[in-house]
Amino acid sequence: MNLLRDLPPGGAGEVTERLAGNGAVRIERIVSRGEASPAGFWYDQDEAEFVLVLSGGARLRFADGEVRALGLGDWVDIAPHRRHRVDWTDLAQPTVWLAVFYGP
Amino acid sequence: MNLLRDLPPGGAGEVTERLAGNGAVRIERIVSRGEASPAGFWYDQDEAEFVLVLSGGARLRFADGEVRALGLGDWVDIAPHRRHRVDWTDLAQPTVWLAVFYGP
Repeated sequence: MNLLRDLPPGGAGEVTERLAGNGAVRIERIVSRGEASPAGFWYDQDEAEFVLVLSGGARLRFADGEVRALGLGDWVDIAPHRRHRVDWTDLAQPTVWLAVFYGP
Repeated sequence: MNLLRDLPPGGAGEVTERLAGNGAVRIERIVSRGEASPAGFWYDQDEAEFVLVLSGGARLRFADGEVRALGLGDWVDIAPHRRHRVDWTDLAQPTVWLAVFYGP
């Protein structure tokens, strides 16, 4: 199985698929095609989230002011309840994320 | 932070670094430079292991007979106690793995 193949078709919006895990961890592929978080929306999650970008590009913004541009190989480990949003994802190509939700 | 940058120097053997996790999950980068498991050796782990290849190439062999060639984007979720070995990793370039150990 390959994270970069069999991508969901365009027009489906952001698509999340569970790859592996158990009751305590979820490993997911997320494919974005230009989606961003709605204006004023912040993720505020009970779990930690490790994200890694495999293709495309994205920009994460944190409520504490940090901004992270992400491309191939870039990863961020987001602590529980560290508020963040997806400011931007690439419009020209799919952005493929590996996400691991775990904890707290 | 980027999985493909700041690679450990050649000659250090296979190098594992912990990136994130908690008591129940470990997220690691593993960099291989041609290493393979010793002849006759099988990993037999209490935890499940999700592995994803970010660069280079590798070949996993399972005791049940399955063989998996892995390149960029390929992933495998290895069940606890499913015996396996690394038959081969690329000699021409570093092989970068993301590994998530979790469970059982």
